[in-house]
Amino acid sequence: VTRAMDEAIDILRRTAGVQIDCGTLKEGPPGIESQADVESVVLPTVRRLQAEPTDAYVIACFSDPGLHLAREVLKKPVLGIAESAYLAALGLGHRFGVVAILERSIPRHMRAIRMMGLEGRLAADRALGIGVTGLSDRDSVIGRIVAVGRTLRDQDGADVIILGCASMGRYRSELEDRLEIPVVDPCQAAVARAVSLLTLGYRTVA
Amino acid sequence: VTRAMDEAIDILRRTAGVQIDCGTLKEGPPGIESQADVESVVLPTVRRLQAEPTDAYVIACFSDPGLHLAREVLKKPVLGIAESAYLAALGLGHRFGVVAILERSIPRHMRAIRMMGLEGRLAADRALGIGVTGLSDRDSVIGRIVAVGRTLRDQDGADVIILGCASMGRYRSELEDRLEIPVVDPCQAAVARAVSLLTLGYRTVA
Amino acid sequence: VTRAMDEAIDILRRTAGVQIDCGTLKEGPPGIESQADVESVVLPTVRRLQAEPTDAYVIACFSDPGLHLAREVLKKPVLGIAESAYLAALGLGHRFGVVAILERSIPRHMRAIRMMGLEGRLAADRALGIGVTGLSDRDSVIGRIVAVGRTLRDQDGADVIILGCASMGRYRSELEDRLEIPVVDPCQAAVARAVSLLTLGYRTVA
Amino acid sequence: VTRAMDEAIDILRRTAGVQIDCGTLKEGPPGIESQADVESVVLPTVRRLQAEPTDAYVIACFSDPGLHLAREVLKKPVLGIAESAYLAALGLGHRFGVVAILERSIPRHMRAIRMMGLEGRLAADRALGIGVTGLSDRDSVIGRIVAVGRTLRDQDGADVIILGCASMGRYRSELEDRLEIPVVDPCQAAVARAVSLLTLGYRTVA
Amino acid sequence: VTRAMDEAIDILRRTAGVQIDCGTLKEGPPGIESQADVESVVLPTVRRLQAEPTDAYVIACFSDPGLHLAREVLKKPVLGIAESAYLAALGLGHRFGVVAILERSIPRHMRAIRMMGLEGRLAADRALGIGVTGLSDRDSVIGRIVAVGRTLRDQDGADVIILGCASMGRYRSELEDRLEIPVVDPCQAAVARAVSLLTLGYRTVA
Amino acid sequence: VTRAMDEAIDILRRTAGVQIDCGTLKEGPPGIESQADVESVVLPTVRRLQAEPTDAYVIACFSDPGLHLAREVLKKPVLGIAESAYLAALGLGHRFGVVAILERSIPRHMRAIRMMGLEGRLAADRALGIGVTGLSDRDSVIGRIVAVGRTLRDQDGADVIILGCASMGRYRSELEDRLEIPVVDPCQAAVARAVSLLTLGYRTVA
Repeated sequence: VTRAMDEAIDILRRTAGVQIDCGTLKEGPPGIESQADVESVVLPTVRRLQAEPTDAYVIACFSDPGLHLAREVLKKPVLGIAESAYLAALGLGHRFGVVAILERSIPRHMRAIRMMGLEGRLAADRALGIGVTGLSDRDSVIGRIVAVGRTLRDQDGADVIILGCASMGRYRSELEDRLEIPVVDPCQAAVARAVSLLTLGYRTVA
Repeated sequence: VTRAMDEAIDILRRTAGVQIDCGTLKEGPPGIESQADVESVVLPTVRRLQAEPTDAYVIACFSDPGLHLAREVLKKPVLGIAESAYLAALGLGHRFGVVAILERSIPRHMRAIRMMGLEGRLAADRALGIGVTGLSDRDSVIGRIVAVGRTLRDQDGADVIILGCASMGRYRSELEDRLEIPVVDPCQAAVARAVSLLTLGYRTVA
Repeated sequence: VTRAMDEAIDILRRTAGVQIDCGTLKEGPPGIESQADVESVVLPTVRRLQAEPTDAYVIACFSDPGLHLAREVLKKPVLGIAESAYLAALGLGHRFGVVAILERSIPRHMRAIRMMGLEGRLAADRALGIGVTGLSDRDSVIGRIVAVGRTLRDQDGADVIILGCASMGRYRSELEDRLEIPVVDPCQAAVARAVSLLTLGYRTVA
Repeated sequence: VTRAMDEAIDILRRTAGVQIDCGTLKEGPPGIESQADVESVVLPTVRRLQAEPTDAYVIACFSDPGLHLAREVLKKPVLGIAESAYLAALGLGHRFGVVAILERSIPRHMRAIRMMGLEGRLAADRALGIGVTGLSDRDSVIGRIVAVGRTLRDQDGADVIILGCASMGRYRSELEDRLEIPVVDPCQAAVARAVSLLTLGYRTVA
Repeated sequence: VTRAMDEAIDILRRTAGVQIDCGTLKEGPPGIESQADVESVVLPTVRRLQAEPTDAYVIACFSDPGLHLAREVLKKPVLGIAESAYLAALGLGHRFGVVAILERSIPRHMRAIRMMGLEGRLAADRALGIGVTGLSDRDSVIGRIVAVGRTLRDQDGADVIILGCASMGRYRSELEDRLEIPVVDPCQAAVARAVSLLTLGYRTVA
Repeated sequence: VTRAMDEAIDILRRTAGVQIDCGTLKEGPPGIESQADVESVVLPTVRRLQAEPTDAYVIACFSDPGLHLAREVLKKPVLGIAESAYLAALGLGHRFGVVAILERSIPRHMRAIRMMGLEGRLAADRALGIGVTGLSDRDSVIGRIVAVGRTLRDQDGADVIILGCASMGRYRSELEDRLEIPVVDPCQAAVARAVSLLTLGYRTVA
């Protein structure tokens, strides 16, 4: 997942002139699939951020674990990739669709979207039905995302698609070619937003 | 706080014919005032619930820490006192006001209320400006709650008041006499809801 | 209908330690299917409640006829079964589906749900297409509810189902087995809520 | 009240070329101030409408009593003055303020406004604190409405004012002069809407 | 289009006793299909209105071009047909469906509906897939509108249909016969509203 | 105004490594204060953008004139400063306050905010009561913004402030020092967003 993410945000390294380092949390599970997975990484994630001082932090998991804590503790911008993806999608289309990994992630997404007051802009959230670790077979994953994305577009009225996982950004270009609407990779969205916040001198507030 | 809570829910013990035990989490901070406090008790809280099997669980902190995790892990009803207070208030008035302990709790409350899709029923959320541990001086606390409650009622249009803390339920009767509108103690609301769920054979879902 | 209801709430008699009496309004039509049926029972219902003093009242019709009047006139808690079902469903799932008896009841439900500010939590409302008096053939009724409930669950995204009628509670257990999500019987929800309000010493406000 | 109303809608008689008859319901209370007053006139109102066949009906009470029943029973347009006032206000300003007669009418208004899904356009609802029968002293009533209207305009941001009563339309011109924003008389709004519906051949649906 | 519109509003001429003149903007494109078409007519439309003084103005294009400008510039009521259609639909049913000419008009409609705060009453917006100039073949157009209208009614739950174009009003009667729910012609809705505003002495505000 | 804007976005030139050119529309009025001002610049603005090909365009007026047209016509990202400011504010606080130049701009802002479905995140919009051209006296302008900003913060609950004008960004640092919450300059927000969209290879869609 970390390598996939690294590849997806490389585009930002080349143009934004900033240094972007990706790290893997050793204590974490292979993927975040359950609320137990989410909660297990909250404190280790924030400790890790505290241990590696930098100008801005991105928590690269679509459940945004530890986001509010990290903002309280650190005096720098801290960004979640899910919230960044929702904000990016608002600027790219009228109604966004979300491609969830698993059916059971959808209530967690709904809570986050409602928490931000954005449910009026949500077209629908639909699951791939593939586990995080099963996301490595490129062709079948892309085929499945395209199928779900077309349902979101044609049936639910989405005109922008959010990939509800940290590791699918490297497929963005192919997905946009096949879906013909913008596709948001949450990691790219968060790193780009971090660059903007740094440039303009903002920090995020708890 | 635990003793105050125990006293507030005693009314349910006498009439509902159920056994209700209150415990204090030893690992926790004296009060939950920050996001760091919230996150620090998530895993210990859920471990404690797992260690003491019973028919239903109430997490008695107005930040509902570990609620979604406990629901995923346990096969019994698990209730948060904040969500229970919001649900109770919907049935007692048209627009609810929240009495927060601290100004900085208000964004956390707003996130929870929006997450439940209930912001259309919120009149306002106003802070006492007293720390959790400072909540023990009965007279000054009641006086301050009455002042804030009157503002919520007269200026913001609330016709039911939620006490945004676990330890103020024992003042409910006096507060209702002075405010002349219903006052929701979140602990009472959660325990009463637990009794209802048990009676009707429901469990809560992650 | 009254006998069916009596059976459904029996579970509350056994555990809550309260006396619960069910009565039939003699002046009423056999079932409430139209607005004319609703309005015809408003005054007789409230007169009947006034004539039989007790600690709390439940108006056991999914149109909640006379609810606001009874609250104004009586100094005790008065509960409607529809409003109680909506409140209960909020605590059992993320989005509720409603099983209406007739297509033409749906606008009435929508008005009630919007009046409570809860439309953001509604998945959908779908009709059985069976009249109230035709609800007595157990097997066909259950089969039809299961079919409609599955559509609400699978197509509309409901994770809790409300039975939009006073007489279907005795089927709840079988329906939950087959639908695999919580099912709310509005009579049970209202009686349980009445017990809670009495225990905590609240009354409802006009 | 009936005479006042008659005067207010006279403007429509002169220009719309239709015959408009105002009647008083003999069975009713002198004014509708409580839910008991509302419910007491529902059936008599609808019986009266049925007894006097005409092309369209306006129920001239700001609680819209019997509206849904009359629509179900009659095959002609039936209009409530409150719903007509809300619809008219949507076309005259950005956010409407409501001048209620009594404080206790406000929850009833809020239910109606939420039922129509229009709470996003409501600035505020504020009470005069004068009973319906006390509305006859012209100068003090106008003075009070102007005071409340200015608060709605300057403090709550209303740019159109709805008079929440059937009998204040004759003051509209003076009120508009003094408040300098449009003022909606609900009777005028309903009669004008009735004329439109008749002209275009619509009827209202239950 | 102008002739079709003239025919549709003839019903208002006969009964309302007002003079209604329809004009064609010579500078405009044959139909308004794009944002470029919309913007190209804003200034010419308002200049034309200024050049022909009258008591009230209707801008008869479903994109309401120049509406806010005309209201600022003219001291008379100025109405858009789209906003008038949405307001009329609120009074004729519970949830309205919109029949758009083209798929790409839908985001423009959505912006207008959200701008008015009415998205809670929208069932759905579906496109005919026929260009404005292709709207002249009566039978195929009616057949297509009926097909789309049935989907809006049966699948999306609309109980009133808005024709999203200025030229389809003459088909209203046949469409209502076949769809069995009210159909709103935006030109009729706007002219009827203009007559009401004139009668009651209102003007619209920028 | 153009020079002030140029100064405010200079921070982006230094760090983002992109060339940013500011131009003044010669045909335009000195400031955009009315709907007439807005509409008068729509076509000239878009023609100017077409005449000067570049990678991305920002329309630097808080009324976002010509935004939808420019997106339809140009095959590059086109950004409005108002929509960019609203999106930026969502990521910097819980509820945003808007500092409008004039009272009469507020309805225009409300329409834009509702159009984006973001009214749930708006604290309030309050006017400075100073014309655009009067915005050049630094001290009195800053003093007035601070006063309005404090009302938005303390009375309306805003925790981020949007400057509703293109020319106040150079005061941002001083305003943030005195208000102690983030302040969004819409020009900075739009240019930063343009850089992000270019970096990630998105274009905006009509």
